Amino acid sequence: MLKREGRTLSTYGLESGPLGYHPLREYIARKLARDAGITCSPDEILVTSGSLQGLDLVNQVLLSPGDTVIVEQMTYGGAITRLKRLGVNIVGVEVDHDGLSGAALKTALEDLKRRGIRPKYIYTIPTVQNPTATVMSTTRRAEILGLSAIYGVPVFEDECYADLVWEGTRPQAMRGMSQDERVIHIGSFSKSIAPALRIGYLVAGWPLMSRILAIKSDGGSGAIEQMILAEYCPDHFDTHVRALRKTLRRKLDVMIEALRVQFGPAAEFADPAGGIFLWVKLPDGVDTTRLTQMALQSGVAINPGAEWMTDAGAGRKRIRLCFAHPSEQVIREGVASLAGICHREFAVPARHAKEHR
Amino acid sequence: MLKREGRTLSTYGLESGPLGYHPLREYIARKLARDAGITCSPDEILVTSGSLQGLDLVNQVLLSPGDTVIVEQMTYGGAITRLKRLGVNIVGVEVDHDGLSGAALKTALEDLKRRGIRPKYIYTIPTVQNPTATVMSTTRRAEILGLSAIYGVPVFEDECYADLVWEGTRPQAMRGMSQDERVIHIGSFSKSIAPALRIGYLVAGWPLMSRILAIKSDGGSGAIEQMILAEYCPDHFDTHVRALRKTLRRKLDVMIEALRVQFGPAAEFADPAGGIFLWVKLPDGVDTTRLTQMALQSGVAINPGAEWMTDAGAGRKRIRLCFAHPSEQVIREGVASLAGICHREFAVPARHAKEHR
Repeated sequence: MLKREGRTLSTYGLESGPLGYHPLREYIARKLARDAGITCSPDEILVTSGSLQGLDLVNQVLLSPGDTVIVEQMTYGGAITRLKRLGVNIVGVEVDHDGLSGAALKTALEDLKRRGIRPKYIYTIPTVQNPTATVMSTTRRAEILGLSAIYGVPVFEDECYADLVWEGTRPQAMRGMSQDERVIHIGSFSKSIAPALRIGYLVAGWPLMSRILAIKSDGGSGAIEQMILAEYCPDHFDTHVRALRKTLRRKLDVMIEALRVQFGPAAEFADPAGGIFLWVKLPDGVDTTRLTQMALQSGVAINPGAEWMTDAGAGRKRIRLCFAHPSEQVIREGVASLAGICHREFAVPARHAKEHR
Repeated sequence: MLKREGRTLSTYGLESGPLGYHPLREYIARKLARDAGITCSPDEILVTSGSLQGLDLVNQVLLSPGDTVIVEQMTYGGAITRLKRLGVNIVGVEVDHDGLSGAALKTALEDLKRRGIRPKYIYTIPTVQNPTATVMSTTRRAEILGLSAIYGVPVFEDECYADLVWEGTRPQAMRGMSQDERVIHIGSFSKSIAPALRIGYLVAGWPLMSRILAIKSDGGSGAIEQMILAEYCPDHFDTHVRALRKTLRRKLDVMIEALRVQFGPAAEFADPAGGIFLWVKLPDGVDTTRLTQMALQSGVAINPGAEWMTDAGAGRKRIRLCFAHPSEQVIREGVASLAGICHREFAVPARHAKEHR
């Protein structure tokens, strides 16, 4: 790749313009058409430095302090942090086993409308919801899109985990279902190839894209990473992700088994439809924010529920456990260590499993 | 490199923490000690996505709308754009053959002080000033630092061209001369290795660095680029840059010769001390903003002076010509084409050189 095209590194845009390396955008367009049912040209795709930059760019263009946005009540912690930093009013809407609740969304939109407030967007993670790991049905997606149309509020769809559904296929993305420019779509290679590559993408119509391009003054996203992905993905992405899903599912099974052994019924969770995390509810009396701090001192890193919910108080009993990076052995040891700390601090689980051995 | 450390790509920070890939920071620390007289540990260095991200991060931490900053009257266009977007008052201070004028800076600081305004920083490009391509003397640097101390205004030193001084050595950076945290220093590999890599760095004391780290929520800068530079630079950077400087100097000579042939005395400029651009003054009556548009239609890209000066009106007679990327042949053709357009539109140069042949 460098022998063939290395000279283009001497320009800011790899001779591909401000949207990113053209061969990569071509691959993403083909992939989105096949996997997500999105029909778009490479020129409707912007390569970003991770989907995080996609979040930042959309926020920077659409939001001002005092604006209101709707997000899922349980959602990506980094999205909440960003919105708080921007001084935006965050309205959290209930999620159920099918993701963002249509009924609750309608109530929230109606309530805001009565108060003369039109939210700037509805942020949702439909496929492998973060942190609940559900996959939103097509019916629910249609319901959300309907509400988006009625209330004139765009949908901001974050599909960064969508390649990691265990069964290998994902429902059509809302950007694909919608026939207009009402849906902004972001995706990522962080979960499927490597987070350190910092390569994500954003699909949007020209009215928004032109405004985003005007403020993406970073001189382009990582060039070699873009070239590597464009070279690797067409022939190898599918095989790689198939194997990755198997590994992740196996690690998840190890984590679930470890939780059953160590926590017994004290740890409640639903079986994830895919992804890299498990969303666990612990009994009353456990303060997971404190648990997180204690665990970190013992070398076990977990996400406290308070950071993954719009109502931090409601997150105090929840934890988000990632199983992608640690080995099966480390998962087992980590869960055992966590149970030990939790028992010591909160007398939960009531009797520490190990004591019976 | 990938065989040895590829596994670390599966984490966000390459197991090096939020400051960036540790071996690269070690190299930068050694390089800054040797070339710029800056004594700092790798942990006072933040790897950024180009020095542009350094600009953005410092601005984001230090500036609010309505704040005042001091910049050189002729300065990097991207810095001006960014400051305007942030709603900041820009005070442009005169530059002379030695860079930012100490006398003019003192007047500006005194004037602001009388009005009760303390600027947030003094932004300067001391080594290969952009666009005038001068190198600030050590005496002048000391003068600026003295004023910074007296008026309590930090210096924001952008040394992104400092490797490209023709004579191969650069004066000590102000960050190195200063014994306290008053100087923020940024640098880049964009001009010495490749712009598309998007790797720069920022040196700052912990009070500022800790605030910057809190908002650098991008998941890290490009990993493979950082690893490549850490692998390549220790053994090859010096040899490469020595050869690069020779190539650039030769291209500059071609550009100067072409300007003399095509524009004659109508094009005024000083011989750059290094870098990749030539700052040219054209006669009264030429509007370089219009000239830029006309030239672009003929496939010749130049920077209009209005974008490189705080007083856009004063920049109307100036152009910034880059000679790094085009071949010698393209430089000759480009300057000839520019002269043709300039003659057609503004009757400058008075008689087009080619007509005499």
